[in-house]
Amino acid sequence: MENIRLDIEYDGSGFAGWQRQPASPTVQATLEDLLQKLTGTRTIVYGASRTDSGVHARGQVATFFTEYSLPAEKWAPMLNFHLPKSVRIVRSASVPRSFSAQKQAISKIYEYRVLNRATQSALDTRVYFYPRPLDWDAIRRSLPEFVGEKDFKPFQGAKAEVKTTVRTILSFELLEEGDGLHCFRIEGTGFLKQMVRAIMGTVIEVGEKKRRPEDIKAIFLSGDRGKAGRTLPAAGLTLAKIHFREGQ
Amino acid sequence: MENIRLDIEYDGSGFAGWQRQPASPTVQATLEDLLQKLTGTRTIVYGASRTDSGVHARGQVATFFTEYSLPAEKWAPMLNFHLPKSVRIVRSASVPRSFSAQKQAISKIYEYRVLNRATQSALDTRVYFYPRPLDWDAIRRSLPEFVGEKDFKPFQGAKAEVKTTVRTILSFELLEEGDGLHCFRIEGTGFLKQMVRAIMGTVIEVGEKKRRPEDIKAIFLSGDRGKAGRTLPAAGLTLAKIHFREGQ
Repeated sequence: MENIRLDIEYDGSGFAGWQRQPASPTVQATLEDLLQKLTGTRTIVYGASRTDSGVHARGQVATFFTEYSLPAEKWAPMLNFHLPKSVRIVRSASVPRSFSAQKQAISKIYEYRVLNRATQSALDTRVYFYPRPLDWDAIRRSLPEFVGEKDFKPFQGAKAEVKTTVRTILSFELLEEGDGLHCFRIEGTGFLKQMVRAIMGTVIEVGEKKRRPEDIKAIFLSGDRGKAGRTLPAAGLTLAKIHFREGQ
Repeated sequence: MENIRLDIEYDGSGFAGWQRQPASPTVQATLEDLLQKLTGTRTIVYGASRTDSGVHARGQVATFFTEYSLPAEKWAPMLNFHLPKSVRIVRSASVPRSFSAQKQAISKIYEYRVLNRATQSALDTRVYFYPRPLDWDAIRRSLPEFVGEKDFKPFQGAKAEVKTTVRTILSFELLEEGDGLHCFRIEGTGFLKQMVRAIMGTVIEVGEKKRRPEDIKAIFLSGDRGKAGRTLPAAGLTLAKIHFREGQ
């Protein structure tokens, strides 16, 4: 029995997220069904991050156990041969049986990209297009308000069941990439459902001058989803990287 | 009669290039047919660069004359409303009647992107995918060989009719963008048909150790297309920017 790690890239626009759903195509189900077809054995693929419907990934990591005899590095080309072009296994490797992508991630980095100019892009669809002016200085000043160990209950999507809504954001930065493209990069030890998109909705409402950076403290204190900003669309969000303990 | 300048972005994968063709969809024909439909008048759209089939543009510039009464900046949203998503007018403006995007460009910048890693990208299709190792040091050393005023006859695609094959390359640089993505940025006063893709084929053959950087001088001296490298695919090429005289 071997434990195989997959590093996975996907365009999420054609998927109802990572996690298997009864009736919609998901990345997990696509991989599991393919592994079953190839190996003849029902196989569970454990993903480090359950990305939501429409969210993209450049650095998803998943593991599965198999008894099928194939050199570990050959899983990537074999799976890629059969997978749709919107999912690519960037590499495959044998890892200790104790390694769990799902349980041993120490931090995750998400990117949210905003295109702030008059016209949509013909070349880049993985953005949130915002045609009116935004106060980028105020947006910049709002970012530190989200960094640290905090109760992110006001930024949790509906219908989520978790033990605690306390999470730690390690960094939240903004990179300007030219031509109106702005990339927000947020690293945290973990994220609640739709948390990045709710944070981003709040940040954009600061840019719209509907809120001030100094209002964010009161949103955290309220514990109320209704006090935070709207949830931005999934298309702008990409799971960029997952960090594991040293050497993994 | 007003002269309207359009700044245009397009994903070239669905087009047989910029220039109108008898039977294939082109960006020029798409714009001209739409203008005729909207204004009732047959209109010629003059593009600064006749990008080849499959080549993308972030900074194409074109002009057309019209007597149709519409504030100049409204052409962009009106055209975008009707155009396919793969073509976007980034802005429209009224320019002096003497301004010709086609004749007054002083330089053009093209980008050619190479993805050099084991696996294709799920997210980025506007690249030339090259899975085997390349000698990037040798590639870097070859770039200055193309800079300056030179006879680029060995790098001209077939069936081209031009007065002279002498062109001036102002700069040729390589930017590493991480995860195996390399972006070549070449600025010149003008380019022959398929010239960037033939230069890039030669550069990649240096990376494959089929040629050395010091062999490139002899290719120029030969004047022979057969001595230069292969023509790389159009998908990796994007017209990035066109410079005009001061204030245009």
